Amino acid sequence: MTKEPLFLLTNDDGIDAPGLYALSQQLQKIGNLIIVAPSVERSAVGHAITLFDPLRVWDYQCNGSFYGYAVNGTPADCVKIACGAILDRKPDIVVSGINLGPNTGINIIYSGTVSAATEGAILGIPSFSISLATYKNPDFKYAAKFALRLAGSLLEKGLPRGIYLNVNVPPCAEHKIKGVAVTRQGLAIFEEKFDKRVDPRGRVYYWLTGQKVDKENDIDVDDGAIQDKMVSVTPVHYDLTRYDFLAKLREWRLEK
Amino acid sequence: MTKEPLFLLTNDDGIDAPGLYALSQQLQKIGNLIIVAPSVERSAVGHAITLFDPLRVWDYQCNGSFYGYAVNGTPADCVKIACGAILDRKPDIVVSGINLGPNTGINIIYSGTVSAATEGAILGIPSFSISLATYKNPDFKYAAKFALRLAGSLLEKGLPRGIYLNVNVPPCAEHKIKGVAVTRQGLAIFEEKFDKRVDPRGRVYYWLTGQKVDKENDIDVDDGAIQDKMVSVTPVHYDLTRYDFLAKLREWRLEK
Repeated sequence: MTKEPLFLLTNDDGIDAPGLYALSQQLQKIGNLIIVAPSVERSAVGHAITLFDPLRVWDYQCNGSFYGYAVNGTPADCVKIACGAILDRKPDIVVSGINLGPNTGINIIYSGTVSAATEGAILGIPSFSISLATYKNPDFKYAAKFALRLAGSLLEKGLPRGIYLNVNVPPCAEHKIKGVAVTRQGLAIFEEKFDKRVDPRGRVYYWLTGQKVDKENDIDVDDGAIQDKMVSVTPVHYDLTRYDFLAKLREWRLEK
Repeated sequence: MTKEPLFLLTNDDGIDAPGLYALSQQLQKIGNLIIVAPSVERSAVGHAITLFDPLRVWDYQCNGSFYGYAVNGTPADCVKIACGAILDRKPDIVVSGINLGPNTGINIIYSGTVSAATEGAILGIPSFSISLATYKNPDFKYAAKFALRLAGSLLEKGLPRGIYLNVNVPPCAEHKIKGVAVTRQGLAIFEEKFDKRVDPRGRVYYWLTGQKVDKENDIDVDDGAIQDKMVSVTPVHYDLTRYDFLAKLREWRLEK
């Protein structure tokens, strides 16, 4: 008898999010699941980890039975504590999602969803994040089916150490999806503004607002692919070194 | 009369941190300063931004006079709100630090200090983060002097769009520092553990602990350079795409 694969599932929308549930319903078809997710929404936490507060873990019920572990931490904390304290063996694959809303372009550096896959990759586990590119009337069905297919490919092929995948699914019916594009991270800039308001006590406060300008429409770019109704799969890593600038910077002759 | 350069200073140790003060004392020699920093310590917040809470800004006094603006947000929030709501022109350079403790290797993806420089680079401003590689008896004097020199170089040479610098200074007296190394981000893995405890009410909680294993000792690597008493300067960027894996991933023929 071959051992069933073990999937670690997490997200940043919180353990009660429908996107995580949809993912679990598909992945349980091909393996055992362990769900370890934030107890509350943790969007835009970036790759945060919790150092100055103790982490706590609770059993979380769904439809009257055990569903997973809720953690008072970030998505990255969830992957760390799952592998370091909850599980007695390494999961075979880490899947983070399905996020409500896209994780594309520069935004991925702010993404809790992506950071959980980063953490999986750091621990040497094939990992991917998956997001549905809409905030309205989400239907996670197709994205969850794609996650199942991609998990199958990962089990078969693995991934080189340090590389993980960031997936974005366009918000349309399965029959309207044109295909799958392997993409790069878009680099289009956001035009951000701060909405300045005054509270009932006369004090000023600000809300961050903004929208992406000059979107990159090429289907080789994550944003462009989903606009063209393609599933976008971007191979990413956590080595931020800009290797092609090392030689140039040495020419600066920075003295001590 | 030439316009004085404008430096935006921030950090993740909080606006009252001695490392930020040391930095300000040096940089004021060559330009005007604006200090916009978190009102409290924000270590290990990663590249978080605040979306679901309003941001507030307070004047912060030091020795009885105006020192800068304190923000109830992250380092990335500080750079955004400085450029988007406080300043009426773009700063010429963003400097984040001087952090108490190193920001090297994989850790930089968790670093609030580095994320502020990332945010500066996203906004098209030459930016660097600077950290003193010790937690004990910090003496920020030499690191601040190096920041002054590097800021001068940046004013003169600029940086290509999207590239910024992550600097780590060894914790030794100036005369013991051997030189400056242009380095890559180390990729050594942490050996992490969770310390499991029981609180006075009988409930379990966890603290993350751990230490770096198989350190990379090469002086071409950030950690190796500071161990060898060299100042480490790493050119980094926020494009996480693993370009060399795009072709391989296309061969997987991921179908929709």
